[in-house]
Parts: sequence; structure tokens; C-alpha cells
Amino acid sequence: MRIPNHIGIIPDGNRRWAVDQGLTKDKGYTHGLDPGLELYKLCKETGVKEVTYYGFTMDNTKRPSKQTKAFQKACVDAVKMLLKENAKLLVIGNSDSPMFPEELLEYTTRRTIGEGGIKVNFLVNYGWQWDLKSIIESQEEKNIHSRIKSNDVSRVDLIIRWGGRRRLSGFLPIQSVYSDFYVIEEYWPDFKSDHFNQALSWYDKQDITLGG
Amino acid sequence: MRIPNHIGIIPDGNRRWAVDQGLTKDKGYTHGLDPGLELYKLCKETGVKEVTYYGFTMDNTKRPSKQTKAFQKACVDAVKMLLKENAKLLVIGNSDSPMFPEELLEYTTRRTIGEGGIKVNFLVNYGWQWDLKSIIESQEEKNIHSRIKSNDVSRVDLIIRWGGRRRLSGFLPIQSVYSDFYVIEEYWPDFKSDHFNQALSWYDKQDITLGG
Repeated sequence: MRIPNHIGIIPDGNRRWAVDQGLTKDKGYTHGLDPGLELYKLCKETGVKEVTYYGFTMDNTKRPSKQTKAFQKACVDAVKMLLKENAKLLVIGNSDSPMFPEELLEYTTRRTIGEGGIKVNFLVNYGWQWDLKSIIESQEEKNIHSRIKSNDVSRVDLIIRWGGRRRLSGFLPIQSVYSDFYVIEEYWPDFKSDHFNQALSWYDKQDITLGG
Repeated sequence: MRIPNHIGIIPDGNRRWAVDQGLTKDKGYTHGLDPGLELYKLCKETGVKEVTYYGFTMDNTKRPSKQTKAFQKACVDAVKMLLKENAKLLVIGNSDSPMFPEELLEYTTRRTIGEGGIKVNFLVNYGWQWDLKSIIESQEEKNIHSRIKSNDVSRVDLIIRWGGRRRLSGFLPIQSVYSDFYVIEEYWPDFKSDHFNQALSWYDKQDITLGG
């Protein structure tokens, strides 16, 4: 089986899940923490080299502050959970803004956690415009990818999105130009390891042409 | 029904269709011409304001020259067919290269055809890197979209891809960050108007958040 080097995760549907459970929307995010850890473990076991989680975006921070606080906290908690594991961790996003959780500042350059190994990237207060604007500033390199702020995040082979939406929602536009995109109908808090297996089996059947 | 303003069309599967018919791969493209015209008419009738066809990319030109010539010719023929209709036509791509068909040079600035109306964009010898590199050159505007070479192509609301692949293949990365993405399993030469209707019905049920 051909295993993708880099998987992007769009863990959508937390709010819809909460509403279905009779909870307020902000209550969904904590139920997405265990799935995230389980998925990290599956990626490691399978031999995936890099995984990028879509935490929250600058766009998302325009939501009601109760929700904003809830997903900020969930990102901090997710990083704390990962600190007990092994990884090369990078948190990437606009850290000049008060929306960026202070506790995560020390991970905005890549850090080895435990014994290192798999690269794990969290997009936190990420914005695609923010990511691309640095193209203008750094004039040394001709390659677009090397100029963007998220240049330490590699090309994404497979994007898996939970929650049924079929869109990128601003997820890493440069690294996603050739990505295969698999959508899981279930909401993210209903994550099952079988979703991951389905996505990998599907990816295995795709021909990879990189636009050729 | 909420109709998308701008639809992106990835008319994939021409080569696989040809092989299924016992033809050589290069023979598929001419069978994609009538579907393209039919789709243009459907867009106009439905009230779509802008439609962008993914003709061919700079990446694609690395294919065997028999295929390259066949899809170049198909693009020229598609434009010729459109010249009998009404539209505001723009052909956009790297026209400094010999891979760009000379006959299309006069349409690299937007031209009114017949009575005008719907905007029709053809991506011809398009490359996403080519599109984005101009960000560096033009320093006047802060907005990323206004700096790219394809700045006259607006945000895409709905992308419909034929041929079953679930990827953008470098299609307009900036205009596609929030697009809803609908995949038709059938190959492009097997286009049916019902595919278009399916895509519109599906799009009608999506909530549009633009990343919010």
C-alpha cells in the first residue's frame, strides 16, 4: 500500500455535533481532542511522515467569543496532549495577534518532543492571506513555496475532511495544489479509525501525477 | 435556488474515455468540445455570471507531443465555437511560451464577443506558480487577489470536476480557497446536463461561510 507522506486533517463538524447532542456549539471542541490523539497514533503506526491539523483560522476568530475561547483552549489542550508523545512539533499561524494563545508561542519554531519522529503541524490562528503575504517580503528565493510563512510545512499528499463539507476553507493553498481530497460525512467528534483506513485505501487507488 | 456566481470547470477524463473507446489517448479531447458548449449554454440559462474552464496547464505540456498538440487544438477550437456566441471572453495563461497557441493571443485581454454578457475564462497554458509569481512584481496593492496574474478571474463559488479525481490539480489556488467542490465520476466526454443540475442542487444545500 502506498502511504501518503503528509496528511492534512480538517476536523470539521464539532459545532454541528454539539447541537445534535443538545449542547451549545462551544461544547463540541473538547470532544475533538481524543480523536486527534488517536489519529496521530494511527499516522505514526502507518508510517505517515507528517500530519497537519487545521486548528483554527483568523477568519474563525470573528465568531462569538464563547466559541473562540473554546477552540483556542482546545488547541492548547491538543498541544499539551501531544507533549506526552514523540513528535517534531510546529505551531504555525499569526502569533502577532492576541487571538494566538500565549502558551503556544514557544512552539512557533519546530521543537523536538520526546524522541521526535513524525512531524506534527498545528495551524493556529492561520490565515491563507497571512501565509502568502510574506512572498512579497523575502526576495532571495525564486520558489513560491520557500517564500511563504508556512515554508516548513511540506506539500500535502492527502487531505481528509470530516463533517461532509467539500472545500478547503483556506487550508494551505500552496501545499494543497496537488493534494487528493477525501471527505468523511461524519462529524469530527465521531471519528473512527476506520475513517482513516477508508481514506488510505482510497488514496492507494489514486494515480499521483502532480499536475502532469 | 441559490445559483453560484462563478463556476470552475475541470473537464477531466478525456484520455481515459478515449482508451475505453479503443482510441489513442490524444483522440479524447475533440469529444470534449460539444460538452463544453452545452455547459456554457446551461450556465447562461441558469444565470451563472462567470465560468472558468481548465483548458491545459504548463505541467500538462510535458506530456507526449501528440497529446499536447491535441489539447492545444481543442482549446483553439473551443474558443472558435464560443466566438459564435455571446460572452466576455478572457484567455489566461503563460502566453510568453511557444506552448501558448498564437491564435488565442488576441483574447489575453478580456474581449466582448457578440452581445457580451456572461464572463467566460479559459485557462490555457496556465500554471499556478506562474499565476502567483506576479505577486512579487506589483507592489501597489495590499490585496493578494489583486496582485496575481489572474486578478480578472473572480473568487470561484463552485468547482465541478469530471472524471472522478478529487483534487484541484493547481486550478486557481487563490480564487479556490473557499470554493465548494463537486466531483462527477463520469468522464468529461460523457457530460450530461443532469451532471450540472446535480452539482447545482448539491451547491444549493451548502452553507456558505467563506471561512468564517
